[in-house]
Amino acid sequence: MTFPASLMDGYERYLSKGFVRYKETHERLAVYGQKPDILVISCCDSRVTPEGIFHAGPGELFVVRNVANLVPPHEQAQGQHGTSAAIEFAVDSLKVKHIVVMGHGQCGGVKAFRENANSPMATGEFIGRWIKLLEPAAIAMACMPIDKADDPQLAMEYAGVRQSLKNLMTFPFVERAVREDGLLFHGAWFDIGSGELRLMDPETQRFETAGSGSTEDAD
Amino acid sequence: MTFPASLMDGYERYLSKGFVRYKETHERLAVYGQKPDILVISCCDSRVTPEGIFHAGPGELFVVRNVANLVPPHEQAQGQHGTSAAIEFAVDSLKVKHIVVMGHGQCGGVKAFRENANSPMATGEFIGRWIKLLEPAAIAMACMPIDKADDPQLAMEYAGVRQSLKNLMTFPFVERAVREDGLLFHGAWFDIGSGELRLMDPETQRFETAGSGSTEDAD
Amino acid sequence: MTFPASLMDGYERYLSKGFVRYKETHERLAVYGQKPDILVISCCDSRVTPEGIFHAGPGELFVVRNVANLVPPHEQAQGQHGTSAAIEFAVDSLKVKHIVVMGHGQCGGVKAFRENANSPMATGEFIGRWIKLLEPAAIAMACMPIDKADDPQLAMEYAGVRQSLKNLMTFPFVERAVREDGLLFHGAWFDIGSGELRLMDPETQRFETAGSGSTEDAD
Amino acid sequence: MTFPASLMDGYERYLSKGFVRYKETHERLAVYGQKPDILVISCCDSRVTPEGIFHAGPGELFVVRNVANLVPPHEQAQGQHGTSAAIEFAVDSLKVKHIVVMGHGQCGGVKAFRENANSPMATGEFIGRWIKLLEPAAIAMACMPIDKADDPQLAMEYAGVRQSLKNLMTFPFVERAVREDGLLFHGAWFDIGSGELRLMDPETQRFETAGSGSTEDAD
Repeated sequence: MTFPASLMDGYERYLSKGFVRYKETHERLAVYGQKPDILVISCCDSRVTPEGIFHAGPGELFVVRNVANLVPPHEQAQGQHGTSAAIEFAVDSLKVKHIVVMGHGQCGGVKAFRENANSPMATGEFIGRWIKLLEPAAIAMACMPIDKADDPQLAMEYAGVRQSLKNLMTFPFVERAVREDGLLFHGAWFDIGSGELRLMDPETQRFETAGSGSTEDAD
Repeated sequence: MTFPASLMDGYERYLSKGFVRYKETHERLAVYGQKPDILVISCCDSRVTPEGIFHAGPGELFVVRNVANLVPPHEQAQGQHGTSAAIEFAVDSLKVKHIVVMGHGQCGGVKAFRENANSPMATGEFIGRWIKLLEPAAIAMACMPIDKADDPQLAMEYAGVRQSLKNLMTFPFVERAVREDGLLFHGAWFDIGSGELRLMDPETQRFETAGSGSTEDAD
Repeated sequence: MTFPASLMDGYERYLSKGFVRYKETHERLAVYGQKPDILVISCCDSRVTPEGIFHAGPGELFVVRNVANLVPPHEQAQGQHGTSAAIEFAVDSLKVKHIVVMGHGQCGGVKAFRENANSPMATGEFIGRWIKLLEPAAIAMACMPIDKADDPQLAMEYAGVRQSLKNLMTFPFVERAVREDGLLFHGAWFDIGSGELRLMDPETQRFETAGSGSTEDAD
Repeated sequence: MTFPASLMDGYERYLSKGFVRYKETHERLAVYGQKPDILVISCCDSRVTPEGIFHAGPGELFVVRNVANLVPPHEQAQGQHGTSAAIEFAVDSLKVKHIVVMGHGQCGGVKAFRENANSPMATGEFIGRWIKLLEPAAIAMACMPIDKADDPQLAMEYAGVRQSLKNLMTFPFVERAVREDGLLFHGAWFDIGSGELRLMDPETQRFETAGSGSTEDAD
């Protein structure tokens, strides 16, 4: 058997622990289906797990994960676009009430984009095209810098989240849900080393530390 | 502040619990970067969290999540394709050793595809196009049915995983990694109600229950 | 002379027998032209002759024969499409009252399609493309299987007839003739070994044995 | 039940007569499959049935029927071309030894082409494009008239058969079968009113009455 032992061991632990904790929730979800209130668009990065960071149980978060947590604009989303399809499903079928776009520090996709801007042949066939979605973010940042350029990687990570939030509104079905159903957007950013979460202020578009940061002994 | 209270509460719990448990891992991952061995391609469904099911800590799983856990074939992945980009990043940059495609029961994307086959106008602009990626899976199933048609939804969920595994090999960089670096593929399927995990036998392409199912008190 | 002797012998028999029987019909048809009520779309297979199976004389059946008795959908019928042209001629010029799509057992085209689904390079340049017209039939079958999958070849033969009937309605001139002139469609399937004819029930879309099966001594 | 009574009556006669006559042939063909030696490309016209004219039983003739018995040239046969697919199947899979292209008098497709040459909007969407395949035949005829122009409809019917035979050789798999396996082509033309069959002399390309024309009492 070639299935990774670490996964099999993890699954055994899940069965005896995680699943047992949520057993009734799982049974209920199997009968009544999912009805999450929140769509999270996050990165594939192995260090950023939305359900972990938000301590979310089964049925709570509908999660899209792609490189650099990007939302394409409506007009570039022709063809078979997984992220646009997932947003449509979340908004039109599941009627989520919140969409969270969560960036993070040391993002490899943002890093590839920044390097690629100088040596365009550096990245692969698909990554190279995918991260071009960050181009408008870079242009917006270059023209109206909100963040200090002291850490251009961080500034670009923020700019990417802002651009994705902006792109969300280009989808007619999202725009309608915002207008008619009160759908809300949220920008977030996670620091891998410290576990710090920052939220974007909708007015200033700046990212500020969220929560108390205090460590309680809950759960 | 409009940020969902459930997320903020969850984040506080994470800080005091999940993050504390993995504090050193996080600090190490921030310094040395991620180096996951495993790429998991899973569904956006709120009831199916790869890190939960495999009890995986930070840095272990690189995770793509799209509707119906689909891998497009290389030739249809033109344009800005997030899933193809993520696979390329995982294989070419991160050099993962395993790719797990994990389907699950009651998949809404598969359900939409099955309903759409009879009333093609039923699904939305993006979902409708995205789930067309299941067409070759349906064709393969109709022509050479491996699974009993007693539960066509389940049969189609399995067929989708098989097709995604087949599509993986259409990417030249994946084919090369399989040939030269021993990259391995795995098909899996998760049952929401019972927590049962099934793995695909690479020879027979059939799905069989994985693990002992015993409940130990570990962790 | 290289003309096959079997054909020449057969023609001599025809002249003395078949033609003599229908001599006046032929003379009338030469003067007044053809006015068949029925279009039959059937397979090229040497074992399935519509005029034989329906004991039809000259002038009765307008017959299209292609591999696997397929009707392309209107949108895929661009270019110089013989089947679409023949349907247009039958409906618009000849004003036929019935269209019969007749499949049959052991269809080589359906077999090639089923094998091709697993090893796509198996069939030739033209056959490979032509039988792709069966793809929607396979998808419909995989998603909403009407027939038992115990005999997937038979199930696919039925599905092909259903799809061709569905495709007929995509032609504006056919749709208009159905609506305004009461044009009727019929699905049929012929068993080579037993001579059994099955007709599709328009409601259930299932195929049932036609006729009494009794052997009278007529003719 | 809307199935035409004439067909159902005909089928009952077939069961008691045609099928009974060929019962063992049918059973054998069901077990061993078809292996016809001859491909006939004929018109859909209700007055021209190859199996009737050649008094052929089940398993003898592989039959393509399209409007005006046309073979497209290889380069125009892109897309999903039924006639090219059928020829490929007959030559490559069934290894037929003869291909007969059989035209006939009062051909509606040829008539439409001739009228269309003067009033191009006269024919429908598909027929109009399909019969354009006769254009090279018309050009060849205009440049090097073999037949007397006294009956331009007949001359065009002959020219169509010649062109289809010429087009056959543009398919690489046909050309190879001719060169390596001795595959033979035959041009034929059938007169509806008199039952007369004319064969094309391969040297002169002229059509001459075939057979004795005598009426024996065989069968």
